Amino acid sequence: MDGDNKIILNVGGIRFETYRTTLKKIPATRLSRLTEALVNYDPLLNEYFFDRHPGVFCQILNYYRTGKLHYPTNVCGPLFEEELEFWGLDSNQVEPCCWMTYTIHRDTQNTLAILDKLDIDSEKPTDEEIARKFGYEEEFVAGNLTTWQHIKPRIWSLFDEPGSSAGAKAISTISVFFICVSVLSFCLKTHPSMRVPVLKNITVTRYPNATKSWILDKTRTDAHEAFFYLELVCNAWFCIEILIRFIVSPSRRKFVTSPVNIIDFIATVSFYFDIILQEIAQRMNEAEILEFFSIIRILRLFKLTRHSPGLKILIQTFKASAKELTLLVFFLMLGIVIFASLVYYGERIQPNPKNDFKSIPEGLWWALVTMTTVGYGDMVPKTYVGMFVGALCALAGVLTISLPVPVIVSNFSMFYSHTQARSKLPKKRRRVLPV
Amino acid sequence: MDGDNKIILNVGGIRFETYRTTLKKIPATRLSRLTEALVNYDPLLNEYFFDRHPGVFCQILNYYRTGKLHYPTNVCGPLFEEELEFWGLDSNQVEPCCWMTYTIHRDTQNTLAILDKLDIDSEKPTDEEIARKFGYEEEFVAGNLTTWQHIKPRIWSLFDEPGSSAGAKAISTISVFFICVSVLSFCLKTHPSMRVPVLKNITVTRYPNATKSWILDKTRTDAHEAFFYLELVCNAWFCIEILIRFIVSPSRRKFVTSPVNIIDFIATVSFYFDIILQEIAQRMNEAEILEFFSIIRILRLFKLTRHSPGLKILIQTFKASAKELTLLVFFLMLGIVIFASLVYYGERIQPNPKNDFKSIPEGLWWALVTMTTVGYGDMVPKTYVGMFVGALCALAGVLTISLPVPVIVSNFSMFYSHTQARSKLPKKRRRVLPV
Amino acid sequence: MDGDNKIILNVGGIRFETYRTTLKKIPATRLSRLTEALVNYDPLLNEYFFDRHPGVFCQILNYYRTGKLHYPTNVCGPLFEEELEFWGLDSNQVEPCCWMTYTIHRDTQNTLAILDKLDIDSEKPTDEEIARKFGYEEEFVAGNLTTWQHIKPRIWSLFDEPGSSAGAKAISTISVFFICVSVLSFCLKTHPSMRVPVLKNITVTRYPNATKSWILDKTRTDAHEAFFYLELVCNAWFCIEILIRFIVSPSRRKFVTSPVNIIDFIATVSFYFDIILQEIAQRMNEAEILEFFSIIRILRLFKLTRHSPGLKILIQTFKASAKELTLLVFFLMLGIVIFASLVYYGERIQPNPKNDFKSIPEGLWWALVTMTTVGYGDMVPKTYVGMFVGALCALAGVLTISLPVPVIVSNFSMFYSHTQARSKLPKKRRRVLPV
Amino acid sequence: MDGDNKIILNVGGIRFETYRTTLKKIPATRLSRLTEALVNYDPLLNEYFFDRHPGVFCQILNYYRTGKLHYPTNVCGPLFEEELEFWGLDSNQVEPCCWMTYTIHRDTQNTLAILDKLDIDSEKPTDEEIARKFGYEEEFVAGNLTTWQHIKPRIWSLFDEPGSSAGAKAISTISVFFICVSVLSFCLKTHPSMRVPVLKNITVTRYPNATKSWILDKTRTDAHEAFFYLELVCNAWFCIEILIRFIVSPSRRKFVTSPVNIIDFIATVSFYFDIILQEIAQRMNEAEILEFFSIIRILRLFKLTRHSPGLKILIQTFKASAKELTLLVFFLMLGIVIFASLVYYGERIQPNPKNDFKSIPEGLWWALVTMTTVGYGDMVPKTYVGMFVGALCALAGVLTISLPVPVIVSNFSMFYSHTQARSKLPKKRRRVLPV
Ligand SMILES: [K+]
Ligand SMILES: [K+]
Repeated sequence: MDGDNKIILNVGGIRFETYRTTLKKIPATRLSRLTEALVNYDPLLNEYFFDRHPGVFCQILNYYRTGKLHYPTNVCGPLFEEELEFWGLDSNQVEPCCWMTYTIHRDTQNTLAILDKLDIDSEKPTDEEIARKFGYEEEFVAGNLTTWQHIKPRIWSLFDEPGSSAGAKAISTISVFFICVSVLSFCLKTHPSMRVPVLKNITVTRYPNATKSWILDKTRTDAHEAFFYLELVCNAWFCIEILIRFIVSPSRRKFVTSPVNIIDFIATVSFYFDIILQEIAQRMNEAEILEFFSIIRILRLFKLTRHSPGLKILIQTFKASAKELTLLVFFLMLGIVIFASLVYYGERIQPNPKNDFKSIPEGLWWALVTMTTVGYGDMVPKTYVGMFVGALCALAGVLTISLPVPVIVSNFSMFYSHTQARSKLPKKRRRVLPV
Repeated sequence: MDGDNKIILNVGGIRFETYRTTLKKIPATRLSRLTEALVNYDPLLNEYFFDRHPGVFCQILNYYRTGKLHYPTNVCGPLFEEELEFWGLDSNQVEPCCWMTYTIHRDTQNTLAILDKLDIDSEKPTDEEIARKFGYEEEFVAGNLTTWQHIKPRIWSLFDEPGSSAGAKAISTISVFFICVSVLSFCLKTHPSMRVPVLKNITVTRYPNATKSWILDKTRTDAHEAFFYLELVCNAWFCIEILIRFIVSPSRRKFVTSPVNIIDFIATVSFYFDIILQEIAQRMNEAEILEFFSIIRILRLFKLTRHSPGLKILIQTFKASAKELTLLVFFLMLGIVIFASLVYYGERIQPNPKNDFKSIPEGLWWALVTMTTVGYGDMVPKTYVGMFVGALCALAGVLTISLPVPVIVSNFSMFYSHTQARSKLPKKRRRVLPV
Repeated sequence: MDGDNKIILNVGGIRFETYRTTLKKIPATRLSRLTEALVNYDPLLNEYFFDRHPGVFCQILNYYRTGKLHYPTNVCGPLFEEELEFWGLDSNQVEPCCWMTYTIHRDTQNTLAILDKLDIDSEKPTDEEIARKFGYEEEFVAGNLTTWQHIKPRIWSLFDEPGSSAGAKAISTISVFFICVSVLSFCLKTHPSMRVPVLKNITVTRYPNATKSWILDKTRTDAHEAFFYLELVCNAWFCIEILIRFIVSPSRRKFVTSPVNIIDFIATVSFYFDIILQEIAQRMNEAEILEFFSIIRILRLFKLTRHSPGLKILIQTFKASAKELTLLVFFLMLGIVIFASLVYYGERIQPNPKNDFKSIPEGLWWALVTMTTVGYGDMVPKTYVGMFVGALCALAGVLTISLPVPVIVSNFSMFYSHTQARSKLPKKRRRVLPV
Repeated sequence: MDGDNKIILNVGGIRFETYRTTLKKIPATRLSRLTEALVNYDPLLNEYFFDRHPGVFCQILNYYRTGKLHYPTNVCGPLFEEELEFWGLDSNQVEPCCWMTYTIHRDTQNTLAILDKLDIDSEKPTDEEIARKFGYEEEFVAGNLTTWQHIKPRIWSLFDEPGSSAGAKAISTISVFFICVSVLSFCLKTHPSMRVPVLKNITVTRYPNATKSWILDKTRTDAHEAFFYLELVCNAWFCIEILIRFIVSPSRRKFVTSPVNIIDFIATVSFYFDIILQEIAQRMNEAEILEFFSIIRILRLFKLTRHSPGLKILIQTFKASAKELTLLVFFLMLGIVIFASLVYYGERIQPNPKNDFKSIPEGLWWALVTMTTVGYGDMVPKTYVGMFVGALCALAGVLTISLPVPVIVSNFSMFYSHTQARSKLPKKRRRVLPV
């Protein structure tokens, strides 16, 4: 009889039986150290009582029996890991077949942690939380805040917390409106019908009789004057906004290092810088070069991140998928270099008077356009060998892009679906303190 | 010994044991209020009996133990929530790792609720249900319906319930036929070979001897006369159909506010409006302008929703995905503005005589065509900087579109698969009343 | 005390307790009819014993308790349904939240049934099975098969069962080779460098002096003579093959109605028909018209289904997805009609001298090319309104195609993955007969 | 009473009851052979004790009851199979509905086995492991390694284990740098602005007075001399690297047969071969032909596999998806042959002076470009029949490519996600030996 060797474990009312030797297989754990001196040993029933989840314990006991740690799939990962911790087991010992289960909820936790920081759709903070944020905690508790300490957080929430009040919402809307107007003006002022020719007198000496006359030169055009005033208004607002936000920001160091604020600052400054330079440049006749600086202002669109949760999620997705994006770009670069080389030599095998592929660097453009299946048709292989390379290139492109994109997509949908799930939950959730 | 503190809970025959203190952790719930005075306390066995699901209870008891509410994954969400309700627990307390489980079945219920309203593939209603729909319930029960009250529902089901009878099916087929003919005529009558030149005498004075003559002017063409009669027949049918449907509709207010009916009405009326205006316009020589109004008639295609479950699902998908579609359009707009600006300035860095990008607004079209990977090739970057921007644009397009589309796709497949599942179930399902 | 009302059900050793009234909730089932007179009632323990799955029973008992039938997700569907059947319950009563679970394994069973019929990768049939197939069962058992009855199945498996023997494999390879040669010849003979001009003397009367002379007319070209002999050889093989296969086929009615055989027959006959007609046509000078008939021969590629499991799966996928394909085509047609109309009128609002959209039917082609993101660029909107329509069209195309395609893809991957799974299992599986 | 026939099985403390006859249904298994003489029979309780997983046993006992083996979905596959093995059951008997569960974890194991061999992100091997790898195990244990035996593994890990030390990382970086420079030089030297015309004196005899003069012929261009020196340096490094790696490689046979090393060798040798041939060719005036050989050097990019885990995974994915890739290419080939034929004849039905489809082989290119949705627009159908074929072709392309690609994508994401999961686990995992 092997009765003496047997041990009864009462886990939450369910009685599990096993051999004592089984429990010794994983040393230095709660179960390997069971003695009858323990409080939870019941001499009457000759059993050890544990107030734990019996269903999960079944899986844990099996780890002792087989020496292999598998995750159960009927409870979620964190619950199982909490049990593992209670029983003194190491969740890293998980079998390879359960690695995915092991990592999936870790990824979920990462996602949730990032979402928490993103501050999407969050509830209005209490006065105390705001005071803590501004470092006025002591004064707040003591109740002797100065007037500025009273006003500062209010202005801050007016400009930085769009959901906090009707005024904040109005300011947010104005801000979005000026961003849109500024970008619209930026785009429209390049349109020919919005440009005014700059008339310049050029003295021309005409031969044979060398009479000097002058003509009007209209080669250079300037944007219509209205755009200047439009942008002036926009920039005035941006200027005021960034100044106020800087003054009332809880942490100026954080404010200055935030990428969105840096973009905002550069874009705003560049406008004034432009005006000054243009004055100087007018004499140097090189005003057009200056326009290239204005490209910075398009980055102002990223200020919308402060107002759009969707854009926040997109940027977080790209951050979280940096590895996969690198992989995608790397695969594409490999592909375009190989296919550009192949098509360059391929198109030269057969006589081909209308060859579009004069050099490999030009072929890179074709290969990329083909691999992304854009296919402008400005360069097309004309010989059978080139066409065969083109066929391979199109096929390789479909595969190359299909492979890493789903990983990025799943990152995005993790962020997106959790944001959606979060927004459906009631905001204040009662929390039971673990004992 | 901790025996006194222990409590036995017999849930559906399975005995769970825990400490009394554990049950007190979540106050104001069924388990925290257990007393021996309860009917389901068995003094003999010293246990409380509950006629509930023991497997799910295991998970619920664990909530008391750990203070964390996790959803089990071996039973479906609604079952678990029913148990939670029985035990007096709040399903909103769910841990973040189980949010998805929590929201998924809520989404499923939304989907099912929408599908119920869509009225796809539904069984033939009984006479009583029809009478209730028309508000004749009392008269129906009393048995003294007037002749009109008898006929009205029959005509209604003939026109609005295509599956109700052979006659209804025939009328539905005729209706679809006329929609197709009307749309076909709309398309074909613009074809050059279907158009007849309008001959007009124009008196021309020829110099030098100023003799007056006339020539035939054929610049304006009209659609072949046959199309007019074709459309006349179609519109006659639509006119009759909408009139009858309006007269016999159970609720005229609902009928008038339904978007499909409004489209139908405008499209039908616009035809007659056109004829009248054309008479007047002939004198004003501006008949062509009128043709633009006819674009309304293409909306007649949406009348097909009444006859196609697939189209109903598509429209519901777009309604349910409004948020994601907005996000997609927003991402695309951000992308095209940024890349149009970049390519505009990029193409001007190197000397580029054949530059296609004369302004940013034109570049927007290129950026969109590239980001959607359509790539017409009517505008193509020609310099290396422009090509680099083009490469980024194509890549960004692939990602931008790939990210929100799967969310929309999953909305569609939720609708579609549930419709498929519904159609496979027997129509009349016996229902056990909960006691 | 409610002890009297309680009932103990011992299912596979696990004791479930419930109230007698609970079991009465669903009438006319095994549990609602329990009496102490039953064999499985144990008066000593006062319990009913059932030798069934206790885990599943827990879920079934819950159906009695709550009146709602949910599928458990820890056992697979068919197992649960078998239990439901034992307990006399109706699986159609399933709650809407579990519909998907309910239908998924039904779809799986359909897939498996279709795969069984497809006859992919099947094991060599025994002589008895072959005899049964040919209807010689009685003679086979009696042992008095005629010589023809011996040979016929052997020839049949030589031609129709490529995996049955080395000879069958050789014949299959030859057959595939001839199909490829025939298709290759079909393609290549249209190439200009493979064509020989047909020289014809044409008598020309030259003016003014009306001297008659003749010139060589080379407008018509014929395929090189070699192709005729190549095709003759191919067709000879196809002719022999189809004849033998017809003669030895187990069921001639089935053979004649099989689509692949009909294609094969028409393609083979059309070749001889062509030769005859060409003789006649030469006098009628209309040989080129005849060439159009030869398009039938390209269908010969479908003969490859007999040799490629992948192609079989593809065709089955399209068959099984007929509904979704119709939906896809319907969505696309709606889309192209709407966008063709919009772009046609849109391009005429602004003055547009290079308008590509002369009529709506031409616009249909543009709309389709844009919606499928092919984007040839042969027709491109040139005005801002047209470009806006184009943007909508491209976006609508991406969505329209993305929505139904995943349903078709999942049909394919269901077929494909089950074929893969099947091929990994040992062929002969021992079957335990249910008692 | 059926008590005598009943049997109690105590599995891990949970008591299961069944009929003895049930256990006899599957002969020659552990449960069908139970006798009271067994050690684990407890005469007191009249039960058999097994120290196994009770939850899984429930499913196994059900196999005896129903004769159908279903996989449970609350434990992972390998755990269930280990239990099956203990109970003496055959996992191949699994029901068709659970085939996917059965094969999925087999695929996972294959993936893990391949990943193990790929040697991605692995920990630094111990000296003993290195010694074993080099076959010096005995000498290592004895402690009498020669100096060369000491140095060889160090040099090897310097060149072949980029993660082993800072030096190894530096060498790896240098190697990647030279690959990039070599490929960049390969691409750039074909650019017109990087080429120097080869000047040659050609003596020309001018008529009428037959005076001989000479002109400079610039038709042939050579790459700028700098590229030669650049490539010389690169090749010197590659030469040294491959030599050292060959000398210190643990197994020279393996080294020589590795595809990456073969490519490396050919690419390196081809450079010197080129120089020699060019000397000879200069006299033969056919230097350009030689350049085609240089295409081999682009394969040098595959040397990056040694440095990029992503590329390793990509190549493994294509290896593991060989079947699906073949299917994809086969589907595409079928498609392009059919649509090329249809469009060729389709475009000839209507009069079509600008027909792009002169022959079927040219149509193949169009069909492929359309099916992959690249759509260059160099060939476009011009007639209505051709456009209809084009529409079908685009649609068929979307489907043909959508169907097999997800299978390949899932192969990639299996490799990728397991690599990611692996990298998140602690490297040294304690292993409990099974008893
Ligand atoms: K294109
Ligand atoms: K394209």
